[in-house]
Amino acid sequence: MKMEQRSFIIKGNICYTKTMGCLDVADQAYLVCEAGVCQGVFPVLPSRFKGLPMIDYKEDLVIPGMVDLHVHAPQYPFRGLGMDLELMEWLQAHTFPEESRYADLAYAKDAYETFVRDLQKSVTTRAVVFGTVHTPATELLMGMLDACGLVTYVGKVNMDQNCPDSLQDGGVQEALAQTAAWLQATLGKYRHTYPVLTPRFAPACSGQMLEGLGKLQKEYGVPVQSHLSENLSEIALVTSLFPWASCYGDVYTHYGLFGGAAKTVMAHCVYSSDREVKQIKENGVYVAHCPQSNTNLSSGIAPIRKYLDRGVAVGLGTDIAGGATLSMLRCITDAVGVSKLYWRLVDQQDKPLSMEEAFYLATKGGGAFFGNVGSFEEGYELDALVLDDREISSTRQLSTKERLERYLYLAQEGGRLVAKYVAGAPVLL
Amino acid sequence: MKMEQRSFIIKGNICYTKTMGCLDVADQAYLVCEAGVCQGVFPVLPSRFKGLPMIDYKEDLVIPGMVDLHVHAPQYPFRGLGMDLELMEWLQAHTFPEESRYADLAYAKDAYETFVRDLQKSVTTRAVVFGTVHTPATELLMGMLDACGLVTYVGKVNMDQNCPDSLQDGGVQEALAQTAAWLQATLGKYRHTYPVLTPRFAPACSGQMLEGLGKLQKEYGVPVQSHLSENLSEIALVTSLFPWASCYGDVYTHYGLFGGAAKTVMAHCVYSSDREVKQIKENGVYVAHCPQSNTNLSSGIAPIRKYLDRGVAVGLGTDIAGGATLSMLRCITDAVGVSKLYWRLVDQQDKPLSMEEAFYLATKGGGAFFGNVGSFEEGYELDALVLDDREISSTRQLSTKERLERYLYLAQEGGRLVAKYVAGAPVLL
Repeated sequence: MKMEQRSFIIKGNICYTKTMGCLDVADQAYLVCEAGVCQGVFPVLPSRFKGLPMIDYKEDLVIPGMVDLHVHAPQYPFRGLGMDLELMEWLQAHTFPEESRYADLAYAKDAYETFVRDLQKSVTTRAVVFGTVHTPATELLMGMLDACGLVTYVGKVNMDQNCPDSLQDGGVQEALAQTAAWLQATLGKYRHTYPVLTPRFAPACSGQMLEGLGKLQKEYGVPVQSHLSENLSEIALVTSLFPWASCYGDVYTHYGLFGGAAKTVMAHCVYSSDREVKQIKENGVYVAHCPQSNTNLSSGIAPIRKYLDRGVAVGLGTDIAGGATLSMLRCITDAVGVSKLYWRLVDQQDKPLSMEEAFYLATKGGGAFFGNVGSFEEGYELDALVLDDREISSTRQLSTKERLERYLYLAQEGGRLVAKYVAGAPVLL
Repeated sequence: MKMEQRSFIIKGNICYTKTMGCLDVADQAYLVCEAGVCQGVFPVLPSRFKGLPMIDYKEDLVIPGMVDLHVHAPQYPFRGLGMDLELMEWLQAHTFPEESRYADLAYAKDAYETFVRDLQKSVTTRAVVFGTVHTPATELLMGMLDACGLVTYVGKVNMDQNCPDSLQDGGVQEALAQTAAWLQATLGKYRHTYPVLTPRFAPACSGQMLEGLGKLQKEYGVPVQSHLSENLSEIALVTSLFPWASCYGDVYTHYGLFGGAAKTVMAHCVYSSDREVKQIKENGVYVAHCPQSNTNLSSGIAPIRKYLDRGVAVGLGTDIAGGATLSMLRCITDAVGVSKLYWRLVDQQDKPLSMEEAFYLATKGGGAFFGNVGSFEEGYELDALVLDDREISSTRQLSTKERLERYLYLAQEGGRLVAKYVAGAPVLL
């Protein structure tokens, strides 16, 4: 059976997006996968593929898998709770106390099992994930994520200031040594889980820590994830801690943790200055836009249209537990919604994101961080979702595009994820 | 069996709010209902109630029913679709074509059955509902809503300009005669469905129409619902159509359709001027705040904190299909979310709504339009929801308040509405 070689054909109503803003729709078409790689979408099946097994999903929607560019696994236990604080207070009141618990591996196992099971059942196929400072708990999480079949980057967090002692990992040298050991232990260990360097954010890292992490980046060639310009108090703190920096992003740049050779994703960028945006663009840094989190923590609205106009690489993130839900569908509609409010309340030069544009960000936009991911073009790794919307009540005949739009807004009213493939391998739902 | 007399006791973990901002929590307490009327919440059951039947919902949450102050039943078929236009264009492109179809009673039956079934299964116990201009379809809707057990106000819409001919109901005199006949036919006809005068909004009504409706209001003493200051283009149109009016609300006031003796609810109030807010307050007009709709249609954010500070009566509305979902839980969290963005982006004098405050608006705030509704205080009509949150994955022991907050944000992740009571009568789910 060739399914085992990840070579097969999916038939259904196929929607994806090659170009920002344009939805490619092919009804009752054939999506061909060979060895996990997409061969394209065909209205009529080319004869060269006729030997492959075919799964006919009939009227179901078939779309690319969703990429969550920013999610904190250890914060999952308090998602949807404590939604009344801003970032810095919220970290002290809710986040740090919860993250401290992951020193206890039994607690970590229990909590991460819940997170991984829910992520597995979600529409997410790939994710860039924060762990905690704890190496054993982070390795546990990496193993679980690998076993569930998603492709993930996972970071052991580093921080050594402006956080509780219990989360400081025994001083800079000790923390850096542990981080090096963790990289050695996990690089190449898993099928599709990879380590990512994870300075929590500039306010929680000394220059010494950032310098050490920059060296590790060069030595091991691993990517980087962190937070950037999320909240006004946070930015003020960065300015006071790193007075020499021309902008928040400059702190990371200074230590070699901001794109260029170091593939980097920065969450939020709500208040990035022109200078910072220029660095983001020039260094090829990815922006993980987290609209629900930016709303829940009263941070503001990131000017995503401006970033897109300047050619910045943008994807979407749920940012659990700043965001309450793992649903990337909700993330798409939230991205559309806050962009409308930004247009209305802040800058009418920045037209709102369309559904198709936000869908692009959640698939091909964030997918680019993983390579050729997030589209059904030839040569892309085949991540796909099969969606059944029959239980979402309707009295209309809907086009496939309308069904997709409605699924994004109303999946919770009876939408069902029928199947999920990552690089051509089915994921157990 | 006294259940038939709507007299019984509910045991569970009870949450409600008497005062804006304060949540009253009573774990494993007794909620007593006699003849549909709440007798209070008791930690220990008073002996005088010991003869009543008791339903023990064990660890489930028990909260007041939700009141949807603004929902368009005929727009349900296109909820979650066409989310890329502003109000005036959206009305022409999506709303009016759909509403025209309700001239066909067979279509109306099909569409309204879906709407009513979904509303019945939702957390909403009472609603103020727009129909269309069509009297037969509106009466059909009223009968269906009455049969499903919710308490509703339902309006046959009036409009005679700035809309397609097919929705103008045969000229002003004919429309007013039909409206009078509709009031005569429906007043007192149903157990818990009531007619409400429904000028669509000022731009779609001539002075003659509004004058006639004002007379009908006086003659029949029925309440009024409409839209107010939702969108900037709409407001500009009102200014050009009614140049004598000091503000948009003044148009309704002039014709006796803005509070005072006419109990009135106005949806949106995103851009109400000081003068308008003063009229709203003085006339006791209810504001139906529709945060998701105001986001989806790029209208803006209503300054709800300002209204609350001035003592204006505020409730929440889903505004289907400006809002995509009937869920009042989502409406609560959206109200919190947009209030944070308003604080951050528009006016830092207006602190965000807390979860408890938005919960108040969805229950007792909107409930006041229906009388003593939306609380578990003595003398309130007993509308209650029983919620099971066990399937929402958690690794924590949560307090009842935390369980409520999490349910509001995450009901779609496995929350289950176990039972729903309206004025002490169970609703079939």
